[in-house]
Amino acid sequence: MMSDRLCVADPATYRRPVTDAPPAPATDWARVLAPRSVALVGATGRTNNPMARPLRWLTERGFAGAVHPINPKYAELAGVPCAPSLADVPGGVDLVLALVPAERAAAAVTEAGAAGAALVIVFASGFAEVGPEGRARQDELVAAARTAGTRVLGPNCQGIYDARSRLFATFTSAGERPLAGSSGIAYVGQSGAVGGSVLDVAAERGLDLTAWVSTGNEADVGLTEVGRHLVADPDVDVLTVYAESLPDPAGYEALAAEAAAAGTALVVLRSGRSVPGRRAAVSHTGAMLGDDTAFTLVSRRYGVVLVDDVEELLAAAVVLRGHRAPAGRRLGLVTSSGGAGILAADRASEVGLEVPELTAETQEKLARLVPAFGAVANPVDVTAQLFNVGGGFGEVCGLVRADGAVDAVLVLLTMLVGDTATDLARDLVATVAEQGPDAPPVAVVWMAGEDGTAPARTVLRDAGIPVFSSIALAVRVLDAIAPHPRSDPVAPEPAPPVDGDGWALLDALGVPRPRALTSTDPHETTVAVEELGGRAVLKAVVPGLEHKTEAGAVRLDVTTDAAATVHAELAALPGCTGVHVQERVPAGVELLVAVDGGRDGWPPVLTVGHGGTATEIHHDVAHALAPVDAATARSLLASLRCWPLLAGHRGAAGVDLDVAADAIVRISRAAAVPGLGELEVNPLVCASNAALLASGARIATSSPARHAGAVAVDVLRTEQ
Amino acid sequence: MMSDRLCVADPATYRRPVTDAPPAPATDWARVLAPRSVALVGATGRTNNPMARPLRWLTERGFAGAVHPINPKYAELAGVPCAPSLADVPGGVDLVLALVPAERAAAAVTEAGAAGAALVIVFASGFAEVGPEGRARQDELVAAARTAGTRVLGPNCQGIYDARSRLFATFTSAGERPLAGSSGIAYVGQSGAVGGSVLDVAAERGLDLTAWVSTGNEADVGLTEVGRHLVADPDVDVLTVYAESLPDPAGYEALAAEAAAAGTALVVLRSGRSVPGRRAAVSHTGAMLGDDTAFTLVSRRYGVVLVDDVEELLAAAVVLRGHRAPAGRRLGLVTSSGGAGILAADRASEVGLEVPELTAETQEKLARLVPAFGAVANPVDVTAQLFNVGGGFGEVCGLVRADGAVDAVLVLLTMLVGDTATDLARDLVATVAEQGPDAPPVAVVWMAGEDGTAPARTVLRDAGIPVFSSIALAVRVLDAIAPHPRSDPVAPEPAPPVDGDGWALLDALGVPRPRALTSTDPHETTVAVEELGGRAVLKAVVPGLEHKTEAGAVRLDVTTDAAATVHAELAALPGCTGVHVQERVPAGVELLVAVDGGRDGWPPVLTVGHGGTATEIHHDVAHALAPVDAATARSLLASLRCWPLLAGHRGAAGVDLDVAADAIVRISRAAAVPGLGELEVNPLVCASNAALLASGARIATSSPARHAGAVAVDVLRTEQ
Repeated sequence: MMSDRLCVADPATYRRPVTDAPPAPATDWARVLAPRSVALVGATGRTNNPMARPLRWLTERGFAGAVHPINPKYAELAGVPCAPSLADVPGGVDLVLALVPAERAAAAVTEAGAAGAALVIVFASGFAEVGPEGRARQDELVAAARTAGTRVLGPNCQGIYDARSRLFATFTSAGERPLAGSSGIAYVGQSGAVGGSVLDVAAERGLDLTAWVSTGNEADVGLTEVGRHLVADPDVDVLTVYAESLPDPAGYEALAAEAAAAGTALVVLRSGRSVPGRRAAVSHTGAMLGDDTAFTLVSRRYGVVLVDDVEELLAAAVVLRGHRAPAGRRLGLVTSSGGAGILAADRASEVGLEVPELTAETQEKLARLVPAFGAVANPVDVTAQLFNVGGGFGEVCGLVRADGAVDAVLVLLTMLVGDTATDLARDLVATVAEQGPDAPPVAVVWMAGEDGTAPARTVLRDAGIPVFSSIALAVRVLDAIAPHPRSDPVAPEPAPPVDGDGWALLDALGVPRPRALTSTDPHETTVAVEELGGRAVLKAVVPGLEHKTEAGAVRLDVTTDAAATVHAELAALPGCTGVHVQERVPAGVELLVAVDGGRDGWPPVLTVGHGGTATEIHHDVAHALAPVDAATARSLLASLRCWPLLAGHRGAAGVDLDVAADAIVRISRAAAVPGLGELEVNPLVCASNAALLASGARIATSSPARHAGAVAVDVLRTEQ
Repeated sequence: MMSDRLCVADPATYRRPVTDAPPAPATDWARVLAPRSVALVGATGRTNNPMARPLRWLTERGFAGAVHPINPKYAELAGVPCAPSLADVPGGVDLVLALVPAERAAAAVTEAGAAGAALVIVFASGFAEVGPEGRARQDELVAAARTAGTRVLGPNCQGIYDARSRLFATFTSAGERPLAGSSGIAYVGQSGAVGGSVLDVAAERGLDLTAWVSTGNEADVGLTEVGRHLVADPDVDVLTVYAESLPDPAGYEALAAEAAAAGTALVVLRSGRSVPGRRAAVSHTGAMLGDDTAFTLVSRRYGVVLVDDVEELLAAAVVLRGHRAPAGRRLGLVTSSGGAGILAADRASEVGLEVPELTAETQEKLARLVPAFGAVANPVDVTAQLFNVGGGFGEVCGLVRADGAVDAVLVLLTMLVGDTATDLARDLVATVAEQGPDAPPVAVVWMAGEDGTAPARTVLRDAGIPVFSSIALAVRVLDAIAPHPRSDPVAPEPAPPVDGDGWALLDALGVPRPRALTSTDPHETTVAVEELGGRAVLKAVVPGLEHKTEAGAVRLDVTTDAAATVHAELAALPGCTGVHVQERVPAGVELLVAVDGGRDGWPPVLTVGHGGTATEIHHDVAHALAPVDAATARSLLASLRCWPLLAGHRGAAGVDLDVAADAIVRISRAAAVPGLGELEVNPLVCASNAALLASGARIATSSPARHAGAVAVDVLRTEQ
């Protein structure tokens, strides 16, 4: 089947860890990134071969450590003595580059371990990405590393570059650039191709990366392990990450938390987030459950910047390198053209950034600088005339930046070129520098050819002010780096045991639900109906019967007088084992509250939404990591489209939000239930008289068949 | 009030046409764009002044017509004899550039008319954009033009550039470029700043514009008039438009229709489309009703390409210049890196482009070219190895392009640089040329520095293949140029007169609604209830009473027996003038069907949505230009989230879609009612037994107070 050709390249599959491998030894990453000695096993004399690049670069471009090409065929290579084998290198090595084909890689790893290497980089492809045979070869590689006490980067990777040590342990074409600087931006990612693009384009823009690691198939070392070292590196201000799969969610959460603690900006581009993108990566489309929600929630919790494109990855890094992230989502716009200001406001609206009116004080000050036919509220339109009369532009931007109403400033410039442009850039840079790095970040969109504005752009970039050519891209990046709704961790309550059905779990969590009992006797049923207020719902208990209403097994609104008769009728149904007598549920707003126990190692996720029919039709849902506190529960409710029904709408009473939030908090604690697959309460009926009842619930346990869909072990649904 | 500073710059206001001006004379645009003679009134000798540029450019850069600077202070300027006044130019002039301040512009227009000028370009600002005084000055300008029998471009504009005639009737800085070519791309727009950016950036990319017009305040000539000339110009393949306001919707529709008929691609960037963007442009936020829906529907009807950013405007033009637009929304992806392919699939999914599996035949052919660990389904991952072994890349792209399953091909390249890159580009160009221009369009994303790939990019661009740096931008542009849902015009039925309330209009349109009568007699009420099946809804008719249910004026489910009693109770309510007896409405899916009679000159718009409570909560609506046919009505229903309820959901019966579509078609014909403000039918109840009843309706007439919100002249609502 042709589409099998796609299957073998499924990154989510070939980065599946070797489950029975012993734990990896701790790796001294500082030693790996600045090794005293590097050996190149399989170094080649064919200088046209890309695999000849590492030796050439290591010997010619300032690497201070020892370099040992290993190849029995040569006495020397690139002017350096060539050893016949790793065992012949005196004093051992810190880092080994395995420049050998796939079938010889495991042997190279074994030798490297014997030589004391902390890490072996395996560049070759032909491992798990090509199918089962390659998968076996990859497992052998890991086994060899564990036995030899070393680690493996790759296989099928492009290696490491470090600007500080001048370590060119890579063959990426981007390494042909001078790469003399260290911008404070680092990269780690699975794809060497995407990483090469980041390294290359950043360098072209004068931002040579500080460190760069391609992890490939991640047979052993994953990007989260490398990332956790890099965010702690004092030379790294921003870590950019490209991830096709994240097989180690706990490692990702640790990376995010440690980046936040270290004050290092973390910008992540994850591919395969959409269903079709995921389908491009996997063949088992039907069975794949996305973990994108949990990934997003974990990222938001720690302030990780999520982007959608390589261009955005780099652009966000550039903004965050020069500035702190904005403290809020309010944008100040300063423009030389009304049109550009309106376009920026349009784009800001689309991504949910605000463009608030500036304070009266700021507007008064601006009015003294801006021509009468300009605008001072926000966007601030200084008009081209400001530049004809000679200046004040930096001051205008400074006033907007200093206004308490804005969290970031976007400056939009049109056809200002040549000396006017350069003067303007200098003026802006002086103001920004004077205000210091703690003021809101500033970015510029310059809508004119690069050539006519090149000196001005250089002035801005040298001062750490990012320059965009596109309004839409600038606004998307400002959105990405601005804060998004997030919830802080909540200490979990002790987990109630799951010793019964979904109702029992709700009882243990303290979630109110309709009073009910199962009766086998008409008299008992009559008493029960009377105790439930003289009216109740009666349902025949018929194991295996699915459409109870259609089968006549459900009777709504049964009175005490009719109870015995109805009981008899229900009991006469084939297979009936009893009659369920249940309190009637009041009319109210129906919510869905569900807890997913955590998929593939990701933490549990709470979903709150408009329940009942609306659940499937209108997909009006919000998510948070579970458990949640009452404040998060309320903010989830407030983010729903059905919020007006809850808050009170068109004169109708709303529901008791404290009661609703409390029920959500309680249900969210099911996250602590060991082995929970999913608990779904739907509908959770919130009546206007503050009553609240969970009148339908479903619980599923985690199981090996999980990926084929949640398995319901108990389904209870109350018809109203 | 500070925010008044924003108000004066409201483009929607200052482009409001002069209502009492006589009609404009027809303008010979070919004569304007290639004039035999140009006069520059107020030509200046101060060469540093931007206003000195047009004379310099006209005399130095190949303009073939006569050039007449006009200024009594000089005998000659820029080596050309200078006349003291327009009257002194022998033989008259075709085009006049008024380089004078605002207060002298009207006099210049009068003189230009006397000299036989077809058009006067007024560059000065200080007109309607600065407030009431300027507005009066602008009206004088138009009056002067009408009296003198000439036309005005501007004021507050940047003029005209035409590549063919070398007409530099502009002072835009972008004119400093050589501008030697004619790319087939033209521009017309209100903003000279945005236009300058388009001209400048396009030229930097080797795409000198063919014609360029900035219309400024549009006191007389609007962008649609200029646009209609340009789309008929045989040298123009693509017209790019930037619009802040479209005061002439009929002209816009004509422009769109004529572009489609001429086969000229029309790409429009409209600003102020979002509410905040609109707020950036107007101060009367509360009163402004957006016309964006009608604008979008008109644009879609004629295949206009709508974009969101200046960068996208130009990028779309570049793609459409070299290729026809895609015939469908299916994207073929060819990549040298799996990661780039997955990212592109992610972005395609977000904008609603499909990435379908290629046909088995294509996959078989591809399998012979693509390495075993690549992928051939779509995305096609050729892997970097393909380039190591030397080629076949063009052939791969050609196979994908020739596959009937795709409508456009996006090629994603990563770190391929230098000669490899150039060879690859030549290979791709050869294949694309061989397949011809009628095959699906091809675009390339090259994710590597510009410098290392410059020769390759040039090879591609010279062959008309657009090259992007960003996957996200490329996908957005492919989405913009791909077809979107559209409806063809439907011949309107004769308009029923509005001689009664909303119900009467529904009756005239033939939309079923609950049987009802108004009774003043208990016996009559009893008979009516009996005739309605023995049960009916009774409502007190109390003029001015708003919350009827709360006031006890509505009784649901009244039986024949109770009718007389309930009638008496209702009649006893203060102000009651009668009792409304109405057929009960069955349970069913509630729809909203509304016709907006057309705002500000835009055509009527039909809205179909999930009605009842869902209308305000879930905003599940779809739109089409009204009237519609049954096929459009059904496709609108199918695009709603509530479609499963209509089609049948979880074993529940759906509604009779023919009946529902027929009612929508009938309601849409209200578009022909003269003076219709809005007709809103909500709920239109579609029951599963094919019954359908409009059980609530509201109609509003058009009125001068329209912008303050629709005025309901009759409100009828049936409670169920």
